[in-house]
Amino acid sequence: MKIARFSHGETISFGIVDEEEHELVVLKADPMFAGYEPTGERVALADAKLLAPVIPRSKVVAVGKNYHEHAEEMGGEAPAEPLLFLKPNTSVIGPGDAIVLPPESAQVEFEGELAVVIGRVARRVSEADAESVIFGYTIANDVTARDLQRRDGQWTRAKGFDTFCPLGPVIETDVDLAHGELTTSVNGTRHQHGRFADMVHSVAKIVSYASDVFTLLPGDVILTGTPAGVGPVVDGDSVEVSVSGLGSLVNPVREAPAR
Amino acid sequence: MKIARFSHGETISFGIVDEEEHELVVLKADPMFAGYEPTGERVALADAKLLAPVIPRSKVVAVGKNYHEHAEEMGGEAPAEPLLFLKPNTSVIGPGDAIVLPPESAQVEFEGELAVVIGRVARRVSEADAESVIFGYTIANDVTARDLQRRDGQWTRAKGFDTFCPLGPVIETDVDLAHGELTTSVNGTRHQHGRFADMVHSVAKIVSYASDVFTLLPGDVILTGTPAGVGPVVDGDSVEVSVSGLGSLVNPVREAPAR
Repeated sequence: MKIARFSHGETISFGIVDEEEHELVVLKADPMFAGYEPTGERVALADAKLLAPVIPRSKVVAVGKNYHEHAEEMGGEAPAEPLLFLKPNTSVIGPGDAIVLPPESAQVEFEGELAVVIGRVARRVSEADAESVIFGYTIANDVTARDLQRRDGQWTRAKGFDTFCPLGPVIETDVDLAHGELTTSVNGTRHQHGRFADMVHSVAKIVSYASDVFTLLPGDVILTGTPAGVGPVVDGDSVEVSVSGLGSLVNPVREAPAR
Repeated sequence: MKIARFSHGETISFGIVDEEEHELVVLKADPMFAGYEPTGERVALADAKLLAPVIPRSKVVAVGKNYHEHAEEMGGEAPAEPLLFLKPNTSVIGPGDAIVLPPESAQVEFEGELAVVIGRVARRVSEADAESVIFGYTIANDVTARDLQRRDGQWTRAKGFDTFCPLGPVIETDVDLAHGELTTSVNGTRHQHGRFADMVHSVAKIVSYASDVFTLLPGDVILTGTPAGVGPVVDGDSVEVSVSGLGSLVNPVREAPAR
């Protein structure tokens, strides 16, 4: 099942995507908290503007170097345990929203990723129980100012700028992690291709490990790492991250307006 | 003026501290959003349990190595620009709440700090205008698992555990940054003493710099760095961070319960 958050006229709603009818079955409230009660209304997908399908109230947790070939292209090895960092919720944008290049960086790069959306409060959950706290999955772009990442050492600034965490277009409650794949393209040219089966640390491991550190809250989002092939974007580019069964997250890239 | 968030019976309220009468002037709502409208009720300070005076809805931003002598004791120099990192809002506790030692670490340390509470949406605010977006100040303890900080490289896990961000006891709207001082004591023995005038990067610089990266939201908290003298805490300790004009933030330290 695919869940969208969208605006239609002046209203922001959640809905279930009816892929046959190209419509949204409007829900009374956020299904993460209120279940799947329909209002009876339907909105054509063409008439809706899809928004980030979740607003992280607390945090976006992310994992570094979780595919071997990407760890190598970054000049290192994949760490024995998941390497966690945080992106603030102020960095989240939705599908179609512009990634804005900050003047502080001369090298902003895309990192296509599978993102986990947490649905229940989770503290020290085991790998075996991790699935029970997952609400669903979406697509993320862990946009990174590579030059600042190197210069600062800590990754907070490089990965935390406003607009540096596109999420969407929908939350899919069922994803085939054993066979799922991800691709990232810029202006139609493919740069990244990864299989979730090749993750160094599994989704269950990452959720369990993160929950050993932080209490995870409903709406928290966990980015599961990017495969090899990261590269720069410039003003005017269009970045598309696609995941099998989840669709595509497309975002234009724009220079920041002059100050 | 000192503002507290407190529980009294089953109610959580905000109040202004009347230091002469040892009472709280109860407010109708969070003054950060709703101004200072009193309900007419007063509660004796002795009958109130003070809570973290602010719940960061979005983020706790922190700055590394912002006093020269602390940078030296960490084996480095103070960076030319503020070195930012994030602590999740799930790490925040209030005065009197226990800092819980996670089993993953054998070396948890205190770091007493002055904390800035943001009161207005701020994006690329200048140093000259920084004061206009500050709601007030509180005391923070940037609790850090020093062994994990060294091992991980990224500081997220070491500084992000639940209970690793005590805040309080109150928000003071006026702090004398030119003459203010901070001390941290463990079980009554003083370990840290710093003067805010000795910060490498001023409060105005830090707020401005952080707002160049992230949009700052009302309720965001910025920790301004710790002076020299950090050290370990163990089960049973009591850590007290004191700031002139702001009082003392006291937290006991406890082992995590067996799993």
